[in-house]
Amino acid sequence: MYHHIKKLMYTVRVDQPDPRFGNMLLEQFGGANGELAAAMQYSVQGLNCEDPARKDLLMDIGTEELSHLEIVGTLARMHLKPMKLAREHAEADPLVAIAGGGGVNLFNSMGSAWTADYLKITGELDVDLRSNIAAEARAKIVYERLIDFCDDPGTKEALQFLMTREITHMKAFTRALESLDKPEFSIGKIKPTPGLVDQYFNESTGEGEDGEIDARGPWNEGEEWQFVDAPDDVGDGVESPPSQPEIPTPTPAFAKKRASSRNR
Amino acid sequence: MYHHIKKLMYTVRVDQPDPRFGNMLLEQFGGANGELAAAMQYSVQGLNCEDPARKDLLMDIGTEELSHLEIVGTLARMHLKPMKLAREHAEADPLVAIAGGGGVNLFNSMGSAWTADYLKITGELDVDLRSNIAAEARAKIVYERLIDFCDDPGTKEALQFLMTREITHMKAFTRALESLDKPEFSIGKIKPTPGLVDQYFNESTGEGEDGEIDARGPWNEGEEWQFVDAPDDVGDGVESPPSQPEIPTPTPAFAKKRASSRNR
Amino acid sequence: MYHHIKKLMYTVRVDQPDPRFGNMLLEQFGGANGELAAAMQYSVQGLNCEDPARKDLLMDIGTEELSHLEIVGTLARMHLKPMKLAREHAEADPLVAIAGGGGVNLFNSMGSAWTADYLKITGELDVDLRSNIAAEARAKIVYERLIDFCDDPGTKEALQFLMTREITHMKAFTRALESLDKPEFSIGKIKPTPGLVDQYFNESTGEGEDGEIDARGPWNEGEEWQFVDAPDDVGDGVESPPSQPEIPTPTPAFAKKRASSRNR
Amino acid sequence: MYHHIKKLMYTVRVDQPDPRFGNMLLEQFGGANGELAAAMQYSVQGLNCEDPARKDLLMDIGTEELSHLEIVGTLARMHLKPMKLAREHAEADPLVAIAGGGGVNLFNSMGSAWTADYLKITGELDVDLRSNIAAEARAKIVYERLIDFCDDPGTKEALQFLMTREITHMKAFTRALESLDKPEFSIGKIKPTPGLVDQYFNESTGEGEDGEIDARGPWNEGEEWQFVDAPDDVGDGVESPPSQPEIPTPTPAFAKKRASSRNR
Amino acid sequence: MYHHIKKLMYTVRVDQPDPRFGNMLLEQFGGANGELAAAMQYSVQGLNCEDPARKDLLMDIGTEELSHLEIVGTLARMHLKPMKLAREHAEADPLVAIAGGGGVNLFNSMGSAWTADYLKITGELDVDLRSNIAAEARAKIVYERLIDFCDDPGTKEALQFLMTREITHMKAFTRALESLDKPEFSIGKIKPTPGLVDQYFNESTGEGEDGEIDARGPWNEGEEWQFVDAPDDVGDGVESPPSQPEIPTPTPAFAKKRASSRNR
Amino acid sequence: MYHHIKKLMYTVRVDQPDPRFGNMLLEQFGGANGELAAAMQYSVQGLNCEDPARKDLLMDIGTEELSHLEIVGTLARMHLKPMKLAREHAEADPLVAIAGGGGVNLFNSMGSAWTADYLKITGELDVDLRSNIAAEARAKIVYERLIDFCDDPGTKEALQFLMTREITHMKAFTRALESLDKPEFSIGKIKPTPGLVDQYFNESTGEGEDGEIDARGPWNEGEEWQFVDAPDDVGDGVESPPSQPEIPTPTPAFAKKRASSRNR
Repeated sequence: MYHHIKKLMYTVRVDQPDPRFGNMLLEQFGGANGELAAAMQYSVQGLNCEDPARKDLLMDIGTEELSHLEIVGTLARMHLKPMKLAREHAEADPLVAIAGGGGVNLFNSMGSAWTADYLKITGELDVDLRSNIAAEARAKIVYERLIDFCDDPGTKEALQFLMTREITHMKAFTRALESLDKPEFSIGKIKPTPGLVDQYFNESTGEGEDGEIDARGPWNEGEEWQFVDAPDDVGDGVESPPSQPEIPTPTPAFAKKRASSRNR
Repeated sequence: MYHHIKKLMYTVRVDQPDPRFGNMLLEQFGGANGELAAAMQYSVQGLNCEDPARKDLLMDIGTEELSHLEIVGTLARMHLKPMKLAREHAEADPLVAIAGGGGVNLFNSMGSAWTADYLKITGELDVDLRSNIAAEARAKIVYERLIDFCDDPGTKEALQFLMTREITHMKAFTRALESLDKPEFSIGKIKPTPGLVDQYFNESTGEGEDGEIDARGPWNEGEEWQFVDAPDDVGDGVESPPSQPEIPTPTPAFAKKRASSRNR
Repeated sequence: MYHHIKKLMYTVRVDQPDPRFGNMLLEQFGGANGELAAAMQYSVQGLNCEDPARKDLLMDIGTEELSHLEIVGTLARMHLKPMKLAREHAEADPLVAIAGGGGVNLFNSMGSAWTADYLKITGELDVDLRSNIAAEARAKIVYERLIDFCDDPGTKEALQFLMTREITHMKAFTRALESLDKPEFSIGKIKPTPGLVDQYFNESTGEGEDGEIDARGPWNEGEEWQFVDAPDDVGDGVESPPSQPEIPTPTPAFAKKRASSRNR
Repeated sequence: MYHHIKKLMYTVRVDQPDPRFGNMLLEQFGGANGELAAAMQYSVQGLNCEDPARKDLLMDIGTEELSHLEIVGTLARMHLKPMKLAREHAEADPLVAIAGGGGVNLFNSMGSAWTADYLKITGELDVDLRSNIAAEARAKIVYERLIDFCDDPGTKEALQFLMTREITHMKAFTRALESLDKPEFSIGKIKPTPGLVDQYFNESTGEGEDGEIDARGPWNEGEEWQFVDAPDDVGDGVESPPSQPEIPTPTPAFAKKRASSRNR
Repeated sequence: MYHHIKKLMYTVRVDQPDPRFGNMLLEQFGGANGELAAAMQYSVQGLNCEDPARKDLLMDIGTEELSHLEIVGTLARMHLKPMKLAREHAEADPLVAIAGGGGVNLFNSMGSAWTADYLKITGELDVDLRSNIAAEARAKIVYERLIDFCDDPGTKEALQFLMTREITHMKAFTRALESLDKPEFSIGKIKPTPGLVDQYFNESTGEGEDGEIDARGPWNEGEEWQFVDAPDDVGDGVESPPSQPEIPTPTPAFAKKRASSRNR
Repeated sequence: MYHHIKKLMYTVRVDQPDPRFGNMLLEQFGGANGELAAAMQYSVQGLNCEDPARKDLLMDIGTEELSHLEIVGTLARMHLKPMKLAREHAEADPLVAIAGGGGVNLFNSMGSAWTADYLKITGELDVDLRSNIAAEARAKIVYERLIDFCDDPGTKEALQFLMTREITHMKAFTRALESLDKPEFSIGKIKPTPGLVDQYFNESTGEGEDGEIDARGPWNEGEEWQFVDAPDDVGDGVESPPSQPEIPTPTPAFAKKRASSRNR
């Protein structure tokens, strides 16, 4: 059950309305990484969650994001209001000006309607937490860019508040994931095929125009990796073995066949 | 520059076509967490990336996902083909049957067209890598569910191959993120507000219907956290201080005002 | 500011989970006339509203709809859960089964993602209230159809609760519109062109296949109407008068030119 | 069956093409409340309608809106045409300029493609008429805003014509709804739960930042209303009564339990 | 200006309603290659067209498609109507059953809302005619597939009528394109680069799993073609010549550099 | 199987970055007629194709379009990069600037996400080839318009290269279609109804405002055509004959009934 209190979680102040900035701000109201996306992603995950402790976490943060949505909407509304009054301002976002009368709606900065396609919800708790960590990282960087383009001190303060909270949430989701104490890279129940899982396929080859070569780093070298060159001759398909009797250990032959001599 | 070789990366075998399973499989062809989404997310991130080593990583994996797209499409095509022949099969997915003649198209299992709204691309490398780690975790669990619903041995082998590779990629993206060697929870350049960033807001309160209480765990207790109760009286807004001279240290007053006595 | 309480506004009970009914129920979770649409339409209108009394009304009902969203989501989750377990159930909605693991997401009963294109928000209070009255009427009839297709007593009770509340809201929005005390058919500030505004154009002519003729009723006959036949000769365009000096009284000539003798 | 006559219903005149205004005008061509939306909403409702008299009404107005679509498209085309010729104009709407060569297409003022998600069609006549009344009110206010931003006299006249017709249609739909002679707030066949239906839930509480308090008005006070405060203690869920024998009279206990003493 | 006549262009008869077939039929009502798409594509092209003769053609056919839309909608409505009455039928398309009460709406067979993204409109007459020829070919094959899955004689007759008309339109658009009398492959005004334009790039190489080799045919061999192998060594990029003084004859070097000796 | 080579197919050079032009360029990256649309349309058609020779053609060109996507993306990235740095530039496309940090993403010039609804894939080879011919014609004209609005010589060269290749592909698809050697206007297997197929319906009548009359040309006159006037009296529907025994020769009566005396 939800309650609304007629106070913002963070009181906003706009010294100088700026319709074009208000338009940018819509990115965090009705945009892909905005507050509605966050509120819905966590709250719906919470609805599906069967771990009561982490369900509470999801509802806590999902609810806070609703309060953030209200803050961003209030800010954007203040900046967009002049759109109704002057043709020059209306040109910044005709959809807001003409269809919305200078009010906010759940569109992004380019007038695209918010869509649930933005959400990442799988019903698998550890997977969802990873999606949330990434979502918070995205929201943080978007707020930072808004701050960089903002001239109004009152607005900047509110954005700083919101940006900070994203890091808070990122930390909370990270700790919740860690507390599940699952082995690294273990997702779900079916095991990946041993051997094959450690092969790094070098699929982009050659020397780049600025002299790039095939880069090596912890993501493809060292003990846990086998570096496999892209096939260099036509016909290098991988046949499914004729008598592959059981899941989950297929295709060990595959792994060996394509192993590069460069592997270490 | 791309080349195509007339061999699948993993040769597929379908013993018994199953149109309803073929329909489910479209989730990984034209769905939100499918192979086109993966291919495009990493390749476009690669295009924007200015770190040559990790750009190579993004292009390697982005390209491999294109080859996976081809594998999934081939599999789905084999399973969907009977749709053209029998009304009973056509009912599993009339869009495939009527508009597509039993061929694949970039729709998901419920006929929704693939959209770039599925992609998470910010142009900030460490943020993008987090989005990719989450994307691979999602893809893994989706393949696992497909395997669980699949009766055909040949198809299961191919899905096992694809599922394994997602873990490989998850590992590579994780190592690449670690190798950036950034402090934990440090995203972008603007610092979060100290104090405020460590406050956990308890926004979902009360006792749940199955006896849930406000859960505590590493995500909201311990040295790095201050547990803050939701305001219990109307009027508990947060005023922006009248003379907040500079970013990034606003609202310290806020943090204190709402600090719960339960904090440890 | 929003708070969440760990109790549903209406406790739900599902005696017999029914995945295909759960799928239908998604219509009111992530569908065009569902609870998220209602919650967002009223809350965002409230954000834009400058009449404090009716803004409070919009926030009251917008918040109640959020609590309804939680109820519907909980119900749907209970009905959809078996999707994860049996292939037969999964076929009812492969998107829920495969991508969502049997959990809810903001899609409708055919798997289309919720979109803010469903919302009707103009920033003009009396117009928005009319949109809300219509929205509540639609939500009521959708709940009625769900009840008609529902076999589970517990679910029926919850739907009856939700359906009833839509009528409550319809009544409240109607009273709020009436209390604005505006003349009938007066929208905004610019007056419609007198004369022209009372002309009913008979644009669909002839005798229908079941004997329908051009119907007359209070919507096109009586003192307030002038019934105008569709032009019966080629060339019957309406020229803009050469010296139309001022808005808002253009085209009076137009009205006379096409007046039908059948007018009463 | 439809016929087209090579004359506009209202001949348009553009004295000074204005590409940025042309862009705004697209809101009524391919936008959410535009002429295609109106034409399709009423015509498809007409197709479903089994009341021959009101079906004729729906087809009359649906057809007139098609003629309006042609007028708006012609006007927009005249304003947008210079986009092809000058880079400066093309920047107003690159989609029109680059993809469309300065011609119109069914996009709104921000380049979003028209979608049937804009339509409100339920197949329940009185509900559909309410949706239409609201749609006409929205279309009226959008035309008014376009007139406010328009500098061209010829264009203003055409917009005045179109705006006037929306009020005509609003009146016709209202009279048609009234002529159905249904009791107020009676939608469909299943009755709302007595008692519960008259409860107004005060879900947004507290004192607003500009001193707003919980507002009272005809929408929540008087004989037909029972004003119910939001639950003030955690745990105030509503249990579904254990033996709720029949629809449609559930939860009378609920109504009493939460009734506020402030009720009058 | 449009008129509607209360008769279908082709009177329909449905002997045995079949909700699942009705659902398939929606593909031609609100689907990608359906009648609304056709009506809008040609009519909007007509609106933009400055060649009066072919503008008339576009309006003739655009209008006929509107009449077809009405036929398909009437047919689909007849087949879908039982959805309202039986849960079993409703499961064929819950969106139609629950949200639409068994009536049609502008969705396709999988419930996706019609979108103007289906349309191909460039404002270049010869290009648009090519898009229309292809559109008619697609519509024809879709009607054929519907006929193949249809058991009802009355419905089949109507579909045969509609299917035939698509071929009529395909012929008309083809003759209109031919009558423009433009050189083959001449589009717009800027000439393609000579030499380069005749090079066929062999980008998919190797031997396919069923023994496919690089196929040759009139599309890549003969006098008008130069067959160019994909680069066989890493580093085969194409440098932009340092002093490429003018459009439209750049990159002749490119053509030679990659010319294959297999060219004839 | 796909490989990526770290060289562009055509090396690009940008002398003067121009963010507003970069924004226009996105039309060919993530737009309706852009390179991703081309790559996916042909490659997915190839996946479905059972004619090995023309499947190879589809894969050859589909793969080349992927390389073009990379070129356009690289060009756009170069032009858009300054968006991150200056508020003035960011206003050209706030979505790119704020959400994307100045990097490309799969959106068009107005920020709409790429969607598979752009694709035309039917699984019928000759139909698909027609769709491809039209697609290439559209892509050509879009590149031409971009060249017209481009000031940067390096960018113009690259666009000239890409534009030329579209004509190459148009030629190849045309030759492949011709080589199928099917009779003109023969699509699929079911024959259109003789007689009816040759009737041109004059559905847009009257004299246009600039003196247009009903135009005649090879698309509606001559031996292969019967010119049929729109019905001039109400009631001119076409009854389905009572005993229409078999497909595919229905409705011959229809053809005669409406034949115009103007037919030649």
